[in-house]
Amino acid sequence: MTSTQIFWAHISRLAENGILFDAVVNIALLQEMKSAFGKREGEYSRLVSKSSNKLLNSLWEKKRIPEDGWPEPTLELFLSWLACHDTNNRVDMVSIGAGEREGRVVAPIVRRLHCNMTHGVGRSGSLLEVQPKALGSSMLACLANEFALNAMQLLGLTTCKACLVVPMCTGMSLSLCMTSFRKTRPRAKYVIWTRIDQKSSLKSIFHAGFEPIIVEPVRERDALVTNVEHINRLIEQRGSEILCVLSTTSCFAPRAPDNVEAIAAICRLHDVPHLINNAYGLQSEEIVRKIVAANETGRIDAFVQSLDKNFQIPVGGAIVGTFKQSAILPIAQAYPGRASGIPSRDLVLTLLHQGRRKFVESFDRQRMLFVKMRRKLVSFAEDIGECVYDVEENEISLAMTLSTIPLEKQTLFGSILFSRGISGARVLTSSHDVKNVEGCELINFGSHCSEQHGGYLNVACAVGMTEYEVDEFFVRLASVYAKFTRDMGQWMSEKSIFQPDGYGEEDD
Amino acid sequence: MTSTQIFWAHISRLAENGILFDAVVNIALLQEMKSAFGKREGEYSRLVSKSSNKLLNSLWEKKRIPEDGWPEPTLELFLSWLACHDTNNRVDMVSIGAGEREGRVVAPIVRRLHCNMTHGVGRSGSLLEVQPKALGSSMLACLANEFALNAMQLLGLTTCKACLVVPMCTGMSLSLCMTSFRKTRPRAKYVIWTRIDQKSSLKSIFHAGFEPIIVEPVRERDALVTNVEHINRLIEQRGSEILCVLSTTSCFAPRAPDNVEAIAAICRLHDVPHLINNAYGLQSEEIVRKIVAANETGRIDAFVQSLDKNFQIPVGGAIVGTFKQSAILPIAQAYPGRASGIPSRDLVLTLLHQGRRKFVESFDRQRMLFVKMRRKLVSFAEDIGECVYDVEENEISLAMTLSTIPLEKQTLFGSILFSRGISGARVLTSSHDVKNVEGCELINFGSHCSEQHGGYLNVACAVGMTEYEVDEFFVRLASVYAKFTRDMGQWMSEKSIFQPDGYGEEDD
Amino acid sequence: MTSTQIFWAHISRLAENGILFDAVVNIALLQEMKSAFGKREGEYSRLVSKSSNKLLNSLWEKKRIPEDGWPEPTLELFLSWLACHDTNNRVDMVSIGAGEREGRVVAPIVRRLHCNMTHGVGRSGSLLEVQPKALGSSMLACLANEFALNAMQLLGLTTCKACLVVPMCTGMSLSLCMTSFRKTRPRAKYVIWTRIDQKSSLKSIFHAGFEPIIVEPVRERDALVTNVEHINRLIEQRGSEILCVLSTTSCFAPRAPDNVEAIAAICRLHDVPHLINNAYGLQSEEIVRKIVAANETGRIDAFVQSLDKNFQIPVGGAIVGTFKQSAILPIAQAYPGRASGIPSRDLVLTLLHQGRRKFVESFDRQRMLFVKMRRKLVSFAEDIGECVYDVEENEISLAMTLSTIPLEKQTLFGSILFSRGISGARVLTSSHDVKNVEGCELINFGSHCSEQHGGYLNVACAVGMTEYEVDEFFVRLASVYAKFTRDMGQWMSEKSIFQPDGYGEEDD
Amino acid sequence: MTSTQIFWAHISRLAENGILFDAVVNIALLQEMKSAFGKREGEYSRLVSKSSNKLLNSLWEKKRIPEDGWPEPTLELFLSWLACHDTNNRVDMVSIGAGEREGRVVAPIVRRLHCNMTHGVGRSGSLLEVQPKALGSSMLACLANEFALNAMQLLGLTTCKACLVVPMCTGMSLSLCMTSFRKTRPRAKYVIWTRIDQKSSLKSIFHAGFEPIIVEPVRERDALVTNVEHINRLIEQRGSEILCVLSTTSCFAPRAPDNVEAIAAICRLHDVPHLINNAYGLQSEEIVRKIVAANETGRIDAFVQSLDKNFQIPVGGAIVGTFKQSAILPIAQAYPGRASGIPSRDLVLTLLHQGRRKFVESFDRQRMLFVKMRRKLVSFAEDIGECVYDVEENEISLAMTLSTIPLEKQTLFGSILFSRGISGARVLTSSHDVKNVEGCELINFGSHCSEQHGGYLNVACAVGMTEYEVDEFFVRLASVYAKFTRDMGQWMSEKSIFQPDGYGEEDD
Repeated sequence: MTSTQIFWAHISRLAENGILFDAVVNIALLQEMKSAFGKREGEYSRLVSKSSNKLLNSLWEKKRIPEDGWPEPTLELFLSWLACHDTNNRVDMVSIGAGEREGRVVAPIVRRLHCNMTHGVGRSGSLLEVQPKALGSSMLACLANEFALNAMQLLGLTTCKACLVVPMCTGMSLSLCMTSFRKTRPRAKYVIWTRIDQKSSLKSIFHAGFEPIIVEPVRERDALVTNVEHINRLIEQRGSEILCVLSTTSCFAPRAPDNVEAIAAICRLHDVPHLINNAYGLQSEEIVRKIVAANETGRIDAFVQSLDKNFQIPVGGAIVGTFKQSAILPIAQAYPGRASGIPSRDLVLTLLHQGRRKFVESFDRQRMLFVKMRRKLVSFAEDIGECVYDVEENEISLAMTLSTIPLEKQTLFGSILFSRGISGARVLTSSHDVKNVEGCELINFGSHCSEQHGGYLNVACAVGMTEYEVDEFFVRLASVYAKFTRDMGQWMSEKSIFQPDGYGEEDD
Repeated sequence: MTSTQIFWAHISRLAENGILFDAVVNIALLQEMKSAFGKREGEYSRLVSKSSNKLLNSLWEKKRIPEDGWPEPTLELFLSWLACHDTNNRVDMVSIGAGEREGRVVAPIVRRLHCNMTHGVGRSGSLLEVQPKALGSSMLACLANEFALNAMQLLGLTTCKACLVVPMCTGMSLSLCMTSFRKTRPRAKYVIWTRIDQKSSLKSIFHAGFEPIIVEPVRERDALVTNVEHINRLIEQRGSEILCVLSTTSCFAPRAPDNVEAIAAICRLHDVPHLINNAYGLQSEEIVRKIVAANETGRIDAFVQSLDKNFQIPVGGAIVGTFKQSAILPIAQAYPGRASGIPSRDLVLTLLHQGRRKFVESFDRQRMLFVKMRRKLVSFAEDIGECVYDVEENEISLAMTLSTIPLEKQTLFGSILFSRGISGARVLTSSHDVKNVEGCELINFGSHCSEQHGGYLNVACAVGMTEYEVDEFFVRLASVYAKFTRDMGQWMSEKSIFQPDGYGEEDD
Repeated sequence: MTSTQIFWAHISRLAENGILFDAVVNIALLQEMKSAFGKREGEYSRLVSKSSNKLLNSLWEKKRIPEDGWPEPTLELFLSWLACHDTNNRVDMVSIGAGEREGRVVAPIVRRLHCNMTHGVGRSGSLLEVQPKALGSSMLACLANEFALNAMQLLGLTTCKACLVVPMCTGMSLSLCMTSFRKTRPRAKYVIWTRIDQKSSLKSIFHAGFEPIIVEPVRERDALVTNVEHINRLIEQRGSEILCVLSTTSCFAPRAPDNVEAIAAICRLHDVPHLINNAYGLQSEEIVRKIVAANETGRIDAFVQSLDKNFQIPVGGAIVGTFKQSAILPIAQAYPGRASGIPSRDLVLTLLHQGRRKFVESFDRQRMLFVKMRRKLVSFAEDIGECVYDVEENEISLAMTLSTIPLEKQTLFGSILFSRGISGARVLTSSHDVKNVEGCELINFGSHCSEQHGGYLNVACAVGMTEYEVDEFFVRLASVYAKFTRDMGQWMSEKSIFQPDGYGEEDD
Repeated sequence: MTSTQIFWAHISRLAENGILFDAVVNIALLQEMKSAFGKREGEYSRLVSKSSNKLLNSLWEKKRIPEDGWPEPTLELFLSWLACHDTNNRVDMVSIGAGEREGRVVAPIVRRLHCNMTHGVGRSGSLLEVQPKALGSSMLACLANEFALNAMQLLGLTTCKACLVVPMCTGMSLSLCMTSFRKTRPRAKYVIWTRIDQKSSLKSIFHAGFEPIIVEPVRERDALVTNVEHINRLIEQRGSEILCVLSTTSCFAPRAPDNVEAIAAICRLHDVPHLINNAYGLQSEEIVRKIVAANETGRIDAFVQSLDKNFQIPVGGAIVGTFKQSAILPIAQAYPGRASGIPSRDLVLTLLHQGRRKFVESFDRQRMLFVKMRRKLVSFAEDIGECVYDVEENEISLAMTLSTIPLEKQTLFGSILFSRGISGARVLTSSHDVKNVEGCELINFGSHCSEQHGGYLNVACAVGMTEYEVDEFFVRLASVYAKFTRDMGQWMSEKSIFQPDGYGEEDD
């Protein structure tokens, strides 16, 4: 046998076994061993690298995020492998589509950007259903839910029992949860809403067909905290007319995360559902700890978090988590149709890319950098005669007063920060104006409370922010501030006040 | 100057002018001309190809699907160009993200599959809002809506005035429309629903917080048609308690498209909103014609169609169309947050790939192939002693009786078609069983009507189906049928009846 | 077991078996069957689609171009699968590179464009050697050689016994062959070269360290044909000083393909190697037939063809073919080092994409279109008072006289064709000038012969040209010609003559 | 004007200006400013980010590696932009190909992997020529040569004046240089070759049509160094029969880099060309310093380096450098045809990805890690009773004796290292056997010298090796060594000696 023949024989064997990942078996070595050891060749065969096609198997068996991230070639192989399980990618028998939806994609570039998986996830019955036409897409969807659950547990939500990746924004996902609560609360008309000045949060209530009852926060030293008493009173008054309490954990300082423990206790007492808007709260150990504690002593029906804000994937999805496995089913069934599989795919790819280790590290780094950012902001504020609100429980967002800038110039200051390449920093000014959001009238919208203040700057330290960004932020902030206050004299005669539409609002 | 220097000079000039597509200027030719004609060089300069960077400009100016499709290199350039307008892809100044959502994407493979556009579309206020952070993504979203409108008009909906691409399934989009109607109908509790046995249609009503009032179709010869009288009666009885009538155009034979003209007339008379589920109805000239006519003489508030079923892109989106430009805004504002930009991107890429010509052709081909499919099915049915229901108005789906197969074997017959690589063909059997969908009890679910029948086979000819598929479908159908009836004798003793879960249902 | 559990179990089984392509097994169907037939379930199991992972196996077993092309998802899976066999893509054990070349690629975009296969092909000993570090890349290289051989045989070179894909241009590959002949001809100094006015052909001789003895063609009616007598005389005179005869088959009319049968006979008689430059000759049935015949009765040591010109892949490679299996080895060993694997990859992907059927069709279409082009050119020539040279044996290139255009304007005419988007059409003018190519003095370079003529236009019909291109070519040609002759009056006073550098030459 | 209209107007303006990278102009901000400052708006306009489309311009103007690397979206845009300049990617006028090579690519996946640039580089005249059909590909080729020169200078070869990226391996590129020397040395038959046991180096001489005269190195303490005296003597004897001296800088210890200064001095004195095989020598500051010095006081006609070994790109290319600008032309002209553009593309992409900063850093890191590797190997050698050869001038490769392992087991030891995932580490054993390479008889092939030794292990620290790899290498080496020596007792009775084909050779 020539060396080429040996090689072909080896390849045939590989292919015969359908081995996916069994990469390098040192042919030369095998030959040597044969000649060297004769019959005792098995002696060293244990040195030969173990087949690595166990990688994929272990994924399906354990359904857990692997310890170490996968390299890109493996991710690509994985996607190709999945795609081959969708009917329309069959190579053995041409699939004939005689229905009204057959996963046809006419533009090759679109097909490619979807990795040839075009059927989306779920069926009209439920987001959790498997599509017989699209096993690959369905596997991806299942794996996304399992990975999401695993991720929750890794981040401290150890008692979480089920997760559902939903291809919609946080607000729409909250809406989906409320819809699924409806059946058990046939008389319900209202959702008790602890005020948080995000339009999407408020709109999610209307979208589900309910009306909010607004509970304004109360001031506790620097922080705006939950008015627990008010919630209790409302439930006692309205009883079964209340669909649920919608609390919010992640928010801009000086608003503090809601007191979910107290709310959960009230909800348990009065047998009222409790839904948590935990948009980017996974990043805060304090918030996570509180949700776990609240569930132990009180009631949480579901909690919703954004995929892009916590997992560094593109906008478009959310995760709904529940503490009972059965609780996820009615939520999955409430979605009326098949849905995009992209957020599921992105989550799986991202977690396979990071592996457990780097995933956890990215959260640890956020915590470390937040402490640094707070320290630097406090120091900068002192230097310029401002101060940073003390809202200890808020571990993501910070607020610094802007008393040294005239009220009517504060927004411009924020805009200039943006033009200097700083995105996400927002200036909040105070006003007695009433903003109408979906029919609700909110005074001083943006500040989470009608109470007036002297204006402040919000900044956040989210997962994925780098140390360079934190440092550079302060370099630019200092330079813009210095220039701005120097030039201010010239403008003081002018009186223009401008409020660009939508500026300073928190999007979802 | 050496030839390389001339070349560099030429390139510098190209780059200086920022010319994108001005591809080949024949350098050699220019040189020749100079020497050949001296001052009269202009004489032949008109031969030199006109700069083609007008291509992109004309896109933004006209906002119309180009006549001819773009080749892939151009599509890729276009995507790259767009991506460069998102803040986080800036190359001149490193963007510092100090907010809670900064379009960060940690896995390179995910970033790539999103063409580096990670911010999604819309803001918390509305799906139509532009994100200052993400001009590229926003351009794509705007263009998608313009293209969708252009496509509608090309397909005959010439009076359509506005379109919104929604990154959700048809059912969820119907839900979004209902939510936006709520404000003008504060007392509304019910949606009048002409029965169509898709779970997602029914669920969309519950999701928006309403209850359906079911109007069963009536038999008119072979077809199941709208019970217009019943709808009229219900509106007269309930008045302002009715949110809207939800009619359906595209459906499985023998159900016919709803009589939207009569419904629109009633809705106009009683001032009740009218919402049309036009899931895959764009493919039928008859349906399109009726919607246009219905709007002229009656009332249509919005109509919703699936992106994947009509435009051959992956599952995940829908288009909401309105006949008044202003009517689209409240619907866009009802979505509570930012949303995935993928369906918008896919639609734009697909229409740029096809160009107006091929886009229109693909619909023409469907019409031609449907006629062929009907002719062949009628002929096959005659051969085996069955018949095809005569539902003239249904130009997408066909139904053939299955009287020669025992009731208890019909579903198996359908399954075997699937196993032979035919997807989308469904066998419908009749039953007195009651199916509970979201609390509604529906007799004989799947048949759109409680009336019993002897079982039938549904097939559809949708956009994208090829002539080969139509031909091959009949080859396999004939072969499976022949084998099935031959072997049937052996089973007749057995009594097993099986109804696989969800089999034969219409997904959305 | 819930349906999800069944699904997971199914997936585990798939993964366990390492099944690559075993796409859709209808789970629901399997379940049904179980309940329907009980123990007789096997009855219908034969209906369930056969596993398709045989696809890959058959590739390795047969090493032949598959009958039908593979769809893109399968090609991508195939590439991923191959890449996993290169050491540095291992996922089970991190590879530690302690050598000077470890396939490291620092730019992710570059790695991706190479499908993660970075080691190239061959080793310092031979292009045919397998790299233990890079089994995937090596498999690709082996397959490319096998596919090339298979393609040759499909095109009529049925007695071809071995092929080598070389990642260099045709000229360099000819050089490689000459180098490998050197050992058996230690006294050789010269290569007998039948004149063909391509610089690369001539340069290939010098590159290998030899000197050409030029044999000018002789005129036979319209055609320029091989001066067989001259070759015979030279060999008789110089004997062992001749390394080989280098003949050329594919060329621009009016040069005819060399009379390889006569040359082969002489070479056999005198025991002199014979090398054929068959750059794009695979497209001509006549040339193929002659090479086969020449080998039967005479001597051919190797023949070289361009990859891009015959196989529609990017520039960069060639195929060396031999009629003895053992003859390929010394050529493969002559390459001094490892080489780019890109041409091998591109060839394999292209042939897998086309499949045998479409590959053969593309050559059939060229033949049909060439006949059409010749007919239309003859007709056009008649209309304008020109004529097409009658060179029957040349089935790829055509030449039309340009007597109606003044000599000094002919080149401009060619340039204008180029500026009108016609590439590849060349105007040849005649001249007594001497062109020095690598020290050889050639009179009337470009015309393959020192004999003067009145100028002509060359066009070719190569594989991949579409019917639209042929038709549109004549539309543009006619329009340019009409305009050109109309405007000519104005220029006649002027005397400028220009000859852009390199215009009208045949590249390789 | 509505906000959407303003947006469209802005986009139209962007497109009008053909602005590529002018990413984010804060529209909202511009509006604000207008209202706030009225006519003094210019005051703050300087805050608005400067247009960044200067990026591309500066590339063409400076033709230098940018200071900082470009992000991937920019690289993709750049490739798309280039591709649009190739004729066959025109979108304004369909290109009609009427020649024999038209850049046609039939498989979409192949076209994509070539970024739509399919014409390769160069013309039959020279690798430096611009293809009028393919301006994009030609730009890439030009830029590659400029970047290569810039890179050389950054690495210390400050007096280098011209570079040519050649799409062939180092050996073939050496061959190309020799061919180009031929014209000025018509009587030359021999190349003086300082022995280096790489087959490709030796084969490059034969390929160009010359014969080597071998100069064996001499032992100087541990190192094998150049026998300068011998070279001098040979030149004095043979004079014009010598084409050039081919020296080698990068090599496996204990061979030291050739004394290029002394050789250059001799070459200058006797007016003989001097060609340097600098395969992976760019990584050694010492080698670079010596080449520069040698050129100042002596003669160097060209020096060749591998692209993959120095620049971390896939196998397939080399860079030829010269110290006179005009000297590069004859080399570029010696290539007989058009060539693959892939190595040029890969080099440009890689250097744009890294930027000057990271490119230089990667070389600094190699130097630091080499020192660490040497220190650790010396320490390990001491522990086990071996020693590391002292070859100070070799800053890439190290050699450790293997006296504690019986001769006949040494190769097995090397194989086991490979099977443990260590690639590149080679065991060299000594032998009196004669190896015939292309007719040359070399005793003790692999050891660069016929002198016998007791066996040693070679390891190298090349650019791209990570600190983790260095550390992990020693972990595995120690563990394999311990296990190997422990088990050795059992085998001692056996007598099998095996020498896998090609094992331990240095590839190129």
